[in-house]
Amino acid sequence: MADAQPVLIDGQWRPATAASTFDVYDPQAATPTGETYPLSTQAEVEAALTAGRAAAAEMSERPDVVPEFLDSFAARIETRRDAIVAMAHRETGLPVSPRLNDVELPRTTDQLRQAAAAARSGSWRLPTIDTSSGIRSSYRALGGPVAVFGPNNFPLAFNSISGGDFVAAIAAGNPVLAKGNSSHPGTTRLLAEEALEAAKETGMPVASVQLIYRTEHAVGEWLVAHPALAATGYTGSRAAGLALKRAADAAGKPIYLELSSINPVIILPGALAERGSEIAEEFITSCLMGTGQFCTNSGLILLLADPASDRFLQETAAKFQAAAVGTLLSRGVQEGLERTIKLLCDAGAQLVAGGTVEKGSGYRFQNTLLRASGEVFLRQAQRLQEEAFGNASLCVVAADLDQAAEIADQFEGNLTGCIYSHSGDADDESYRRLEPRLRSRVGRLLNDKMPTGVAVSPAMNHGGPYPATGHPGFTAVGLPASIRRFAMLQCYDNVREHRLPEELRDANLADGTWRWIDGNWTRENV
Amino acid sequence: MADAQPVLIDGQWRPATAASTFDVYDPQAATPTGETYPLSTQAEVEAALTAGRAAAAEMSERPDVVPEFLDSFAARIETRRDAIVAMAHRETGLPVSPRLNDVELPRTTDQLRQAAAAARSGSWRLPTIDTSSGIRSSYRALGGPVAVFGPNNFPLAFNSISGGDFVAAIAAGNPVLAKGNSSHPGTTRLLAEEALEAAKETGMPVASVQLIYRTEHAVGEWLVAHPALAATGYTGSRAAGLALKRAADAAGKPIYLELSSINPVIILPGALAERGSEIAEEFITSCLMGTGQFCTNSGLILLLADPASDRFLQETAAKFQAAAVGTLLSRGVQEGLERTIKLLCDAGAQLVAGGTVEKGSGYRFQNTLLRASGEVFLRQAQRLQEEAFGNASLCVVAADLDQAAEIADQFEGNLTGCIYSHSGDADDESYRRLEPRLRSRVGRLLNDKMPTGVAVSPAMNHGGPYPATGHPGFTAVGLPASIRRFAMLQCYDNVREHRLPEELRDANLADGTWRWIDGNWTRENV
Repeated sequence: MADAQPVLIDGQWRPATAASTFDVYDPQAATPTGETYPLSTQAEVEAALTAGRAAAAEMSERPDVVPEFLDSFAARIETRRDAIVAMAHRETGLPVSPRLNDVELPRTTDQLRQAAAAARSGSWRLPTIDTSSGIRSSYRALGGPVAVFGPNNFPLAFNSISGGDFVAAIAAGNPVLAKGNSSHPGTTRLLAEEALEAAKETGMPVASVQLIYRTEHAVGEWLVAHPALAATGYTGSRAAGLALKRAADAAGKPIYLELSSINPVIILPGALAERGSEIAEEFITSCLMGTGQFCTNSGLILLLADPASDRFLQETAAKFQAAAVGTLLSRGVQEGLERTIKLLCDAGAQLVAGGTVEKGSGYRFQNTLLRASGEVFLRQAQRLQEEAFGNASLCVVAADLDQAAEIADQFEGNLTGCIYSHSGDADDESYRRLEPRLRSRVGRLLNDKMPTGVAVSPAMNHGGPYPATGHPGFTAVGLPASIRRFAMLQCYDNVREHRLPEELRDANLADGTWRWIDGNWTRENV
Repeated sequence: MADAQPVLIDGQWRPATAASTFDVYDPQAATPTGETYPLSTQAEVEAALTAGRAAAAEMSERPDVVPEFLDSFAARIETRRDAIVAMAHRETGLPVSPRLNDVELPRTTDQLRQAAAAARSGSWRLPTIDTSSGIRSSYRALGGPVAVFGPNNFPLAFNSISGGDFVAAIAAGNPVLAKGNSSHPGTTRLLAEEALEAAKETGMPVASVQLIYRTEHAVGEWLVAHPALAATGYTGSRAAGLALKRAADAAGKPIYLELSSINPVIILPGALAERGSEIAEEFITSCLMGTGQFCTNSGLILLLADPASDRFLQETAAKFQAAAVGTLLSRGVQEGLERTIKLLCDAGAQLVAGGTVEKGSGYRFQNTLLRASGEVFLRQAQRLQEEAFGNASLCVVAADLDQAAEIADQFEGNLTGCIYSHSGDADDESYRRLEPRLRSRVGRLLNDKMPTGVAVSPAMNHGGPYPATGHPGFTAVGLPASIRRFAMLQCYDNVREHRLPEELRDANLADGTWRWIDGNWTRENV
């Protein structure tokens, strides 16, 4: 495809052998940006897998190069920051400042550097030494490339070639085959250019960073089940993710998914009485920030029926109507939002604000607030938990605490769940009743705080029970834990010491890796 | 079913509501033991799930009871040791001494006590505290019952109501719904009786230990996908395990599987020249011990063609023929072995010793050794990796090191892989060539030692890549790592300190839990 942008396979930017192409759109103008990208064929993906497999073997021989690469890549992104931010803005409509330039880009380079530090220290491997039996083990690379499917909503920090899954897979010692998100392929291309140069500069195998933009669905399913592939990281829509999960599961290939989440927020009466307007403000910011396009957007608010919750709803509705309407990432997001709002209304929710496509230029939808009684929710609990990805939320008003408990029992697996309560003990009984119901259904439980921010903290869990993700034991954000997703447990039994990987030998590494030796964590030698 | 043994549901030994029953056989005599057991209906399993769900909620409120229960259960097994061992011997044909009484029973009680210690210390939870962001997280119980399907080959140490998966699930804070193995239901019943009494004695919810014996396959698949079930641990045949995996995967329910493994052992020429007879002796012991019915039985030996490997084969064949023929666990195992030996021969392997059902009483099969050239193996690599569960192994003789490398590249995922090499450096070049090929295909890599023993060590990995298990990051043996399989990552963000679980509060627990605080492991307070 001469008119389409090239793909990055085995260190070469080469014209794709694609059968078709797609255009990219500027969501603010709803017009094409002029760039065209290819759909890669199965043969092209196979070539990338072959190159990735060889790169995995090379990487295992030079583990010291990985952190050098990650640091160099971070520096290169900063050097090219203006071009990357401008392209991301054009492709996603997200504001240059503060969002892309001052928040997301620094978050991206910070993640790369945190991953470099984790790879250097080796403590993420949980090296375990049992001196009495001569058995030693640690988490180590999978021995093949990892496919990363990036989402539409973080063109930098979750980009398939620079984001959370990318740094985790690379830090574990695996090459990445990135499948760029179709809504910002230009941003992904610029990042991949810097990744390749960083690899060349530091001596990483060039096929440790490869990029394709899109395939037919069947090729994607073939990819995640391919014998040469080690694992997959996917962030995106539930339907597409579940199709990949089916294919990977059938082949016994690990796949880590971040699929969807409505992030229930329970506001208890004491909190509402104490600081209702303040909480309304926090809710509106959380729901409308980034035009609501966050995995941890507060999509469902659970209130208990009383005059304060009526005031909260009125206040919120007025502010939703008054707030500026942001741009959505793509026509697909706009159409999805329109479709989901209709589904929610069909299931019994009532519109309190917004509800239709916003007139004027670009992909926009009115800031939308829906309302349902607890009774209606319980009748249609599944349909009313459909994620409305974008600037929309549903408020559910329970008749009383018993009904609120019943509602919480119906919540699906979510990334987060939150309870706002009185700053004293006025809500403590209700908290004790509801918290256990929420706890095992969410990955992260918050108090008195909207879930939208996802700090890159070692204690973070950006994960949760199905269907929010595919497995409740893993996090997509937060180093070093996110790295272990892309590693296998490798045990050495009676293996001669000079044949052991460095972190399992008697003498500890210079950086003082933490190791579990005979029942204690220590940085000492054996 | 008045004539069938009762099932244990919600603290009651009650007659099953079964539609049919099965008889148990003494494998040494190939005659019924006289005991009859029920197939449980879907309604009965549902009752167990409901009771298990309530027990999970209770357990979360009294975490201190779990280690008391585990210790009490261990002591009760010791008190009733003679009856348990006698029943296990009658049902499995495994020797009373040393196997059942002196090895497996102490291993079982040791596991229970190690799990109690791990539950008490809490270090298995990997509590992680980030003081700057106010985010804290740890691994905690799943909030529902765990189904455990036990294998036929360890009636005590991997029993569904007393073994490795059981202790891991309970130590994590989950109730267990045990599905006993059909070849030793009486042993399972005796163990469950003690488990229930231990629960009553220590104040554990009685529904934290429940037992059924068998269901129709469809009910098993319904169970592992049930919304009230938290997760499944399964050890057994590949076909039955994969059917359960499909059902659990489709419902997004975690399932941990230990399916099959042929445990390749590579014997390099230097080792053979140096100590061939010694290695032959080790191999025979490993292959024939327990009549070869171990997950880590050495089912494939890879040799390089030379006169020493011919001598090794002759010596081994003679000893296979001379050795006593042990009893197999059941008619099913005998039939499976006969069928698999035929498949291997059809695929090109040649019989060197044994090959048919042993005459005389009980379920027995001749000690069987097969041989194939490297060329034949490469032509039929998949068919020649069929697991012959029992006292049989296949020796593959590669023409040279290049061919041995090609063969290693064809190995499926296995629990273990082993390389025997010269005690000096004579085999080092070959080792460097073959080790990387074996490493990422096996969970545990051994040097100069047969894989059959599986120490209960914190550094053990009894796991490995698919199809040996369902995920390469988890181990079924070795505390505390095996516990984390049955836990979810629970994160607390801005949660008030008195609402945090004990292991995440500022003041550390009395036992000094190891916690990852601001980038270091410590037993101090925050």
